[in-house]
Amino acid sequence: MQSKWEENIRTVTPYIPGEQPKGTDIIKLNTNENPYPPCNGVKKVIRDFKTNDLRLYPDTDSTALRNALAERYEVKPDQVFLGVGSDDVLSLAFLAFFASYKPVLFPDITYSFYDVWADVYKIPYKTVPLDENFRIDPNGYKQPNGGVVFPNPNAPTGVLEKIDTVEEIVSSNKDSVVIVDEAYIDFGGKSAVPLVKEYDNLLIVQTFSKSRSLAGARIGFAIGSERLIKHLNNVKFSVNSYTMNRLTQACGLAAVLDEQYFSDVVSRIITTRERLKFALSVMGFQLTDSKANFVFASHKMLSAKEIYESLRKRKIYVRYWDKPRIGNYLRITVGTDEQTDKLIAALKEILSERGL
Amino acid sequence: MQSKWEENIRTVTPYIPGEQPKGTDIIKLNTNENPYPPCNGVKKVIRDFKTNDLRLYPDTDSTALRNALAERYEVKPDQVFLGVGSDDVLSLAFLAFFASYKPVLFPDITYSFYDVWADVYKIPYKTVPLDENFRIDPNGYKQPNGGVVFPNPNAPTGVLEKIDTVEEIVSSNKDSVVIVDEAYIDFGGKSAVPLVKEYDNLLIVQTFSKSRSLAGARIGFAIGSERLIKHLNNVKFSVNSYTMNRLTQACGLAAVLDEQYFSDVVSRIITTRERLKFALSVMGFQLTDSKANFVFASHKMLSAKEIYESLRKRKIYVRYWDKPRIGNYLRITVGTDEQTDKLIAALKEILSERGL
Repeated sequence: MQSKWEENIRTVTPYIPGEQPKGTDIIKLNTNENPYPPCNGVKKVIRDFKTNDLRLYPDTDSTALRNALAERYEVKPDQVFLGVGSDDVLSLAFLAFFASYKPVLFPDITYSFYDVWADVYKIPYKTVPLDENFRIDPNGYKQPNGGVVFPNPNAPTGVLEKIDTVEEIVSSNKDSVVIVDEAYIDFGGKSAVPLVKEYDNLLIVQTFSKSRSLAGARIGFAIGSERLIKHLNNVKFSVNSYTMNRLTQACGLAAVLDEQYFSDVVSRIITTRERLKFALSVMGFQLTDSKANFVFASHKMLSAKEIYESLRKRKIYVRYWDKPRIGNYLRITVGTDEQTDKLIAALKEILSERGL
Repeated sequence: MQSKWEENIRTVTPYIPGEQPKGTDIIKLNTNENPYPPCNGVKKVIRDFKTNDLRLYPDTDSTALRNALAERYEVKPDQVFLGVGSDDVLSLAFLAFFASYKPVLFPDITYSFYDVWADVYKIPYKTVPLDENFRIDPNGYKQPNGGVVFPNPNAPTGVLEKIDTVEEIVSSNKDSVVIVDEAYIDFGGKSAVPLVKEYDNLLIVQTFSKSRSLAGARIGFAIGSERLIKHLNNVKFSVNSYTMNRLTQACGLAAVLDEQYFSDVVSRIITTRERLKFALSVMGFQLTDSKANFVFASHKMLSAKEIYESLRKRKIYVRYWDKPRIGNYLRITVGTDEQTDKLIAALKEILSERGL
């Protein structure tokens, strides 16, 4: 029975994150984590950390980390915003920038948190269908709207749009804020960061969870015009002043400073991804040309659900959604070469057991 | 000039956190941090932390920390909610529970983030005046409302209300959620946690930032009925799934487990606070009977603003608000005995320079 106080509260259907199975004998390819550890600088930062400093509040502005990101991305520090993972950044950006009565536009197949944020903040929205090849059609974003958001590369398809397509969408929406969610951009895409010079309504969001191996530290960031970042900070400081803890700020800084390790890790993942894509296509999978740290694959003869469950029995975890248009696809994170070999062997076994 | 896209965004006036001055020769008594370091267990956790684990997302449910808190506070794990400091917990609770068209009630003199959260989430609110001794009058909370929130002890006054007063407010508001913000309860107050057994609409919020010396790690928590916590989790998982990072969860667990260190530190702060209260009253200050880790004091002859500025020149930072009713008060954090001696000496000097 509902209590009377429950009439006065907000009821929502939350986002369901990928499963976090425990155990050391599993192969976890379901939440797009990096299979390689963070750089050595992160280890050193934690080892040398002055625990006594934890009694003091952290720097609300994450100054050192923000300055390092500004230098890395060739923008001013006041153009950089830090958050507790890119989900925190996106959530605050939805709250800050999508306050119109007009609908926010995003693709029909995309990151499944967008409609959840829209619902919790009571933001009207409208989805724009991807074409039959899972491509974004910029013309779909030339209708009246209260904002635009899309990932590039898109999730869970991995499909990358060219910078010209991104610019076409931004330039035809100068009266709204356009958010480009670049969580996976480091694995082969070209970032739209240079466009923020020209478009003061463009917000680029990135994360340390994928390419920088720091999913467990919770760091995301946004780059935009100083004016856009100021508005975002006003909302952030109206929600929680001290979000970035001291250890996380220090780990993030160490990760930004080791550009060599970053590019080595990214190269290795790209190489493994291309090998995995080829192996899967040989086995009868249809794949998008993913430019992310995952592949998106559908088998011609065997359902995604059955493959998902068969892999799970072998303690290999991948992601599968029972949703329109993508219900027969698997999203598989690119792991180490060893994990990839085991995945390929397991898939061969699953197919051969069924005479495929 | 305003851009067209700025018409579609949310404009707010953010909360201004206490200044975080840098330097080693300062005495920082302005943000109610604990002057003592975290317990040794925290040091050990950081030293032994497996950095490689940072590549993986953290446990969304903070299971180990939540279980430890449940045991410590004698509730079920499903009655405990974790957040990035109590500000995160309170912010999500405002979003989740204060969704009525009726106004939320809180004291006129109180934590200055309440009206900021109300504004950012567009929640109507109404303040209820404290009496002339800065006490909460439960009768003020017996009017129609969409929720109630107050700190106990109150901030920045430090005034503690008895558990009977808290219960009177809760029991007369069974149709709304009542939030008791117990950030400072460990310094001499009696927590209302036992009341959650009887009232399923009561949410108690506490923090690791004060009594557990972990302001820099960002940990807050709430205790309530399982139903209340479920609603809060639904909103939390609609905003950001992974808020509590791996290092913070581990540090928090270590802090909860060392009950002896916790009570030793709290005792020391209480002893110093009482000494400081007495010394200030001898010098001509009027004080509330603060039960928090700060004192709230007003001098009979010298303005709070002048004292604040004179202390600042001596690199002693305290907090002062230019606001109605409290504009002549200083809020001074209880530091170490050594810091307190220096503060007292500085105040004597400031008064004697003015012939007081």
